[in-house]
Amino acid sequence: MLAIRNINELLIVPPGPVPGRAMRHIETLRSAAVLLDDERIAWFGPDADCDPPAGCPTLDAAGGCVLPGLIDCHTHTVFAGARADEFVRRLEGATYAQIAEAGGGIRRTVEAVRAATGDGLVALAQPRIQRMLANGVTTLEIKSGYGLNVDDELKMLLAIRRLQAHTPVELVATYLAAHTTPRERAGRADEYLDTVLAPAVLARIRDERLAEFCDVFCERTAFTVEQARRVLTTARQYGLIPRLHADQITQMGASALAAEVGALSADHLETIDDGGIDALKRAGTVPVLLPGCSFFLGVEQAPARRLLEADLPVALATDHNPGSCMIESLPLVMGIACTQMRLTPTEVVVAATANAAAALNRRHQVGAIAVGMQADLVVLDVPDHQSWMYELGRNCVRSVVKKGKVVVGLTW
Amino acid sequence: MLAIRNINELLIVPPGPVPGRAMRHIETLRSAAVLLDDERIAWFGPDADCDPPAGCPTLDAAGGCVLPGLIDCHTHTVFAGARADEFVRRLEGATYAQIAEAGGGIRRTVEAVRAATGDGLVALAQPRIQRMLANGVTTLEIKSGYGLNVDDELKMLLAIRRLQAHTPVELVATYLAAHTTPRERAGRADEYLDTVLAPAVLARIRDERLAEFCDVFCERTAFTVEQARRVLTTARQYGLIPRLHADQITQMGASALAAEVGALSADHLETIDDGGIDALKRAGTVPVLLPGCSFFLGVEQAPARRLLEADLPVALATDHNPGSCMIESLPLVMGIACTQMRLTPTEVVVAATANAAAALNRRHQVGAIAVGMQADLVVLDVPDHQSWMYELGRNCVRSVVKKGKVVVGLTW
Repeated sequence: MLAIRNINELLIVPPGPVPGRAMRHIETLRSAAVLLDDERIAWFGPDADCDPPAGCPTLDAAGGCVLPGLIDCHTHTVFAGARADEFVRRLEGATYAQIAEAGGGIRRTVEAVRAATGDGLVALAQPRIQRMLANGVTTLEIKSGYGLNVDDELKMLLAIRRLQAHTPVELVATYLAAHTTPRERAGRADEYLDTVLAPAVLARIRDERLAEFCDVFCERTAFTVEQARRVLTTARQYGLIPRLHADQITQMGASALAAEVGALSADHLETIDDGGIDALKRAGTVPVLLPGCSFFLGVEQAPARRLLEADLPVALATDHNPGSCMIESLPLVMGIACTQMRLTPTEVVVAATANAAAALNRRHQVGAIAVGMQADLVVLDVPDHQSWMYELGRNCVRSVVKKGKVVVGLTW
Repeated sequence: MLAIRNINELLIVPPGPVPGRAMRHIETLRSAAVLLDDERIAWFGPDADCDPPAGCPTLDAAGGCVLPGLIDCHTHTVFAGARADEFVRRLEGATYAQIAEAGGGIRRTVEAVRAATGDGLVALAQPRIQRMLANGVTTLEIKSGYGLNVDDELKMLLAIRRLQAHTPVELVATYLAAHTTPRERAGRADEYLDTVLAPAVLARIRDERLAEFCDVFCERTAFTVEQARRVLTTARQYGLIPRLHADQITQMGASALAAEVGALSADHLETIDDGGIDALKRAGTVPVLLPGCSFFLGVEQAPARRLLEADLPVALATDHNPGSCMIESLPLVMGIACTQMRLTPTEVVVAATANAAAALNRRHQVGAIAVGMQADLVVLDVPDHQSWMYELGRNCVRSVVKKGKVVVGLTW
């Protein structure tokens, strides 16, 4: 049992998916309190009505804001190696093609990940995840996709599994062997897919629960719509839920494929068109936007407002990765969504909680303030969530509660 | 005496102003050490050659990067009140005029500052300055400009003076009574200027050393070029060095005025044209760019690359203020300059050290690594400065040294 008292603003985010036009107005409660019973929210209401049992520990919110723990639903946080030099070369005017020709790009991260041990990957990712937690993230999706052969893809999934023992953040694994075709199989994408989609591989991932989702990078430089269809429908036969990288650089109908295969989410969408929007809407696919990536690359943002106006349940994530978005902070990415996509603080909070939970198939468990939901909560040192986004770039997280336990900050 | 050992990359930023085309290539030393003698840099060189006296305390840089302490040369960090609601209204589509009509805008901060005591202003600003220090800032300019009458402008300058006792960060005060015309004198700007430029007021500021600089907001909604000329030339007679807010929204010849009056810096410059660039160049005026402001407002950035190509010694600052840029972190603003203005990590470091020192008339004291310079240094937990900007949004500062003393992090 734990009581959180003296909350100036409790943001009563409803369970997702919250449709775009409903994201702007979320009920709030002033002078509130929350009671947690073990791992769940047992009660919330006016602080004056809060009646915890004798001896119940109290977390004093000190007039701050309380909201659901953040959910980062699209990351590549398990990786080795750094690519700061490519960041600089791009600022100096080099194109991605020039960087790739000089030995850079994703293949460089693949080499570093292949050279790393599982222990090494765990040691590198662990401090990143702890910093994400300190920024309010309580559920975190991480993809494989830098192994690009069966053994190294499984090594990545096993590293994610082992990281779970090192952090209170709930980790959600996605199998992204179809990130790109490895150099040693250049021009033979289908042959590569034969290996990573082999029945024995997918059965092992299923049996050992090494991943919940299967993802594919559907892009001119990666996999075609036909190949992506094969990846997602094959993996689905082994219980892996489809999601995909869609419409990032090239408009090639990936959103329509997302709808066709019933993908839970379609991520990126910088170049989505009206047909894609209609397709996602019909299929109930969650659009996951990654404004940190466009910001980091200095390119055009996805048409976020159009997606919201189409009433789609937009989610936000960091896309944290060493190539195109070395940004760990989901609150910073939410701030970028405010200033660069013109989303409001309320919209970005819903996008990074309820709708991100929907994108991870956890809408009944996390991302909302409701009795019976898992007690994943963030306490901010600002009076309301608008002030949080306004104080752009400052970590306003005072405490984090995961499954009813205070994991950042102090109780009492 | 203090030795900083085990530095992977020592960034040997030369004293400013560093012209734009020279900003991209700064000498670095690998496996370096620095010796500090009291408040000054006494020696730097290869770690293998470092020979500190017996008993000299050591700060272990642990393979990190060392560079000069950052200099935030344009802020409004002393203020009262918050304007998060206006941030939200603007995201929802309201114009500045609509916000001002509804009682918002700068006049709201003026009311809050007038209502605050000097003690109150100090208490509000102190934690902001400590957070800036934790992000690597060792010299900080702060402007008045929310009092808008003689008493409250002096109250702000006195608050800046008193804050100096609460922080190791060196504070530099600027008199910005000519920020805008206060509501009670609407339409009577010249009459307002008569009061804040009165000889007794300027003599007191001079005699008590309450400010080093005089600034004016030269803009259609604030003061004309003629009025700005009067402000700066009058204040100069009392020893206040001229600088100004120029070419932010309206191109009205403010850069030419900066050159005419010999302003040390011209700040903002989002709309500067070729004539303005030529004028700054002729006069040796430092252009101070504020990319956090454009980012926060979601508007066009200043033409930074054009200024660099014109060989101007570009400086960067946060413009931290409650209306148009609630961003405290200079490293985040440097990251915004990288991704949104296409400056390189080396260029933004020079802009926030040597050239910012030049903009504050301190080029011989701070902002550079040279024997005899004040020992203001930042130790990063990343191996080089490129990695710092690459890890966008993460505070990579491990230790800060101010005047030879470790003020953030631990020695030994």
